[in-house]
Amino acid sequence: MNSRLESTYSQLKQRGLDSLLVSLPANISYLTESLSRDSYLLVSEKGNIYFTDSRYTEEAGSFLKDNAKLKECNGPVFKCIAQAGLELGLKRMGFEERHLAFAEFAKIKEYSKGSFELMPTHGIIEDKRQVKDKQEIAKLKKATRITALALRHIRKFLKPGIKEVEVAAELERFIRYQGARASAFDIIVASGHNSSQPHHLSGPRKLKDKESVLIDFGVDFQGYKSDLTRVFFLGKIKVLVRKVYDIVLSAQELAIKRIRPGAEMAEIDRVAREYIAAKGYAGYFTHNLGHGFGLEVHEDPRISAREASALKPGMTFTVEPGIYLPGKFGIRIEDMVLVTRKGCEVLSGSINK
Amino acid sequence: MNSRLESTYSQLKQRGLDSLLVSLPANISYLTESLSRDSYLLVSEKGNIYFTDSRYTEEAGSFLKDNAKLKECNGPVFKCIAQAGLELGLKRMGFEERHLAFAEFAKIKEYSKGSFELMPTHGIIEDKRQVKDKQEIAKLKKATRITALALRHIRKFLKPGIKEVEVAAELERFIRYQGARASAFDIIVASGHNSSQPHHLSGPRKLKDKESVLIDFGVDFQGYKSDLTRVFFLGKIKVLVRKVYDIVLSAQELAIKRIRPGAEMAEIDRVAREYIAAKGYAGYFTHNLGHGFGLEVHEDPRISAREASALKPGMTFTVEPGIYLPGKFGIRIEDMVLVTRKGCEVLSGSINK
Repeated sequence: MNSRLESTYSQLKQRGLDSLLVSLPANISYLTESLSRDSYLLVSEKGNIYFTDSRYTEEAGSFLKDNAKLKECNGPVFKCIAQAGLELGLKRMGFEERHLAFAEFAKIKEYSKGSFELMPTHGIIEDKRQVKDKQEIAKLKKATRITALALRHIRKFLKPGIKEVEVAAELERFIRYQGARASAFDIIVASGHNSSQPHHLSGPRKLKDKESVLIDFGVDFQGYKSDLTRVFFLGKIKVLVRKVYDIVLSAQELAIKRIRPGAEMAEIDRVAREYIAAKGYAGYFTHNLGHGFGLEVHEDPRISAREASALKPGMTFTVEPGIYLPGKFGIRIEDMVLVTRKGCEVLSGSINK
Repeated sequence: MNSRLESTYSQLKQRGLDSLLVSLPANISYLTESLSRDSYLLVSEKGNIYFTDSRYTEEAGSFLKDNAKLKECNGPVFKCIAQAGLELGLKRMGFEERHLAFAEFAKIKEYSKGSFELMPTHGIIEDKRQVKDKQEIAKLKKATRITALALRHIRKFLKPGIKEVEVAAELERFIRYQGARASAFDIIVASGHNSSQPHHLSGPRKLKDKESVLIDFGVDFQGYKSDLTRVFFLGKIKVLVRKVYDIVLSAQELAIKRIRPGAEMAEIDRVAREYIAAKGYAGYFTHNLGHGFGLEVHEDPRISAREASALKPGMTFTVEPGIYLPGKFGIRIEDMVLVTRKGCEVLSGSINK
C-alpha cells in the first residue's frame, strides 16, 4: 500500500474516525496514484475499498494494485458504501462535507440503518496535497514544459485579424500533440479592452495592431495542471500599457523574492499589493495573488491577504498580480513556483518573459 | 420576467415552498436564459435574486434584465443567501439536494438562525428542461450542424499512422473555428480493439489499415450540447465488423421507428436490446439506449429498460445502441432525436451514415 494511504490512517485516528469516505475525484486520484473516474473511495485500516461501475472496472483493476479492494457496484452506489461500512464493522465514518451532496449523505445515512455515524470533515486529503512529492513535481514540470512549448508556438501564430477563439483553438490542438490530455481550464485569450475583465471568455474579437493580448492557459498532463499567463504585444506598445506592464512585473518579482519556507502567505500577497498601490493602482488589483495547483488547477494554498499560514517546502502555487483598467486593458503576469528548502524555484521562469 | 421563472412559482406552491435555491449551473442558465458562472439563484414570488461575486457582476448585469435582482456577494455567499431569505421573509426554502454540498446546506442553515426551513427537493427544474422550446431547439440544431461539419472534415483527416489524440486535437481545433465554445465532453477516439471499451480515453495509439475507428463527440454551442457517435472504416472492412455494424444499425432504426409521444421509454430501449439479443449478442450491449441532452450532455430523460415514463413532444435524447466484444472491437451508432407531435425527427440523421 502506498504511503499516502498509510499516513491517512493516523490522521483519521487523531480525529476519532475509523474511516473516511473520499468523494472528490482529485483526492481519489491522489490516494490511488491514478486517474480515477466516477468512483468513491473508502479509506479504513480495516480495508480500503474502491467503488465504481462496470464501465471502469477493467481500468481500475489495472491501477489499484494493493491500495484498495475493487468493488463493482452497478446498483445504487450509496447502498454499496453503506453495506461495506456494515461488513467492515465501522462505527465513525468521516465524509468530505464540501464534496458530498446533501442527498448522497442522506442516502448513505438511510442505508446504514444507524450502524455507523457519518461525521463531516474537510481538508484532510487537500491538506496533504499542498506539499508535492518528487513524482508530482516531475509531472508538474512536464506540464509546464508543454505550456512553454505552446506559448512559444503561439507567439508566431498571433497577428492582427486572427480571432481570440482561433488562438484558443490552435493552443488546444498543439498541446495534445505534445502529450497533454487537454487544457486545464477554459483558455482565456483576451485582446485589447477584453483584457480588462480578469475572467473574459475567448470570443470572436479579432486581434489588432498596437494592442496587447493576454493569454491565460494551462495543460493537464497525467492529471497534473499548469496555469500560466502572458501578455503579448502586437506592434508598437502604447506608453501606458508598457508602464502598467512594468509595474505588474516588478510587483511579481518583489513577491517571488519573499517566498521561502516559513514565510506567511499574506506577506507574499501584501508585498505585491502594496507595490501596486504605491504606484497609484490601488483598487485595480482585484483578486488574490495566487493559488495552489496540482491535481486541481485551483487548490490550497490560497495566497491571499487573509491567509496567515506559513509556506512549506514542496508547495506549488501561482504568483499572478494584475492591474485591470475597466474598458481599457488589463495586464496579468502569472508564474508557477515551487517552494524549495531555501527559497523558491520559478518553474515557469524562462517562458516568454 | 421570462415564462420559465413564472411557471416555477406554481410548482413551488404545489410543494408547499415559498422559494427555491437553485445551485446546479445548468438550471441557473436555463432559468436566466444565459450562461451563468459561479452563481446561485433564489427563485421566489417575493423576488428572484442572483448571487455572484465581483468577477462576474458586469456580465451578469447585462443578461439578467428583469428576471432577477443582482446581488454582488464578495464575502461568504451562504451568508448572503440566508440574509436574503430573512429580508424577503421566507419560511420554506427548497434546495436542490443533489446539487448542494452537505457543508453548503449546513452553512445556510446556520446563518438562517431558524428563520426559515430548508426543504430538500430534486428535479423541479430538470423536469422542465426535458421538454425543449423553439429557442433551445434552434441552438441544439446549430450544435448538431457544427458536429456534422466536424465529422465531414475529420473523415478526410483519418488515415493509418495518425494517433487517436491527434484526431481529437483536430476536432477540438475545427469546432472552435465553426463557432462552438468547446467540445461538450472529452472526445472519444477509439481505434481497433480500444473501441471495445465504451468509455475509452483517446490515447497515443495509431490508426491502422483495415481497422475501425469509433468517434464519440459533441460540441457546446451557446451552452447547448450535441452528442454523436460514428464508426469510420480504414480500408477494407472485416466481415465480422460489418456484420456487427449492420446489427447495431438495424437495432437503432427499429428503436427510432417506435419514438412518438406517449411511447414508454423502456419500450424504445427494449426494441433495440431484444433485436441485438436475437442476433446472438445479448450481454454485449452494456449500457442504456440513450439519454437526454441540452444544457447538459447527459440529462433526463434516461432511455433505459427501467424507465416507465412516456415520451413527450419537445424531448431530445440520444439513441445509441452498441455491441462491445472485449479485446476485439466495439460498434456504437449514436444519433440525436427530437420527439415531434406525430413521431420524431432525427436531428443528426444525414451525418456520415
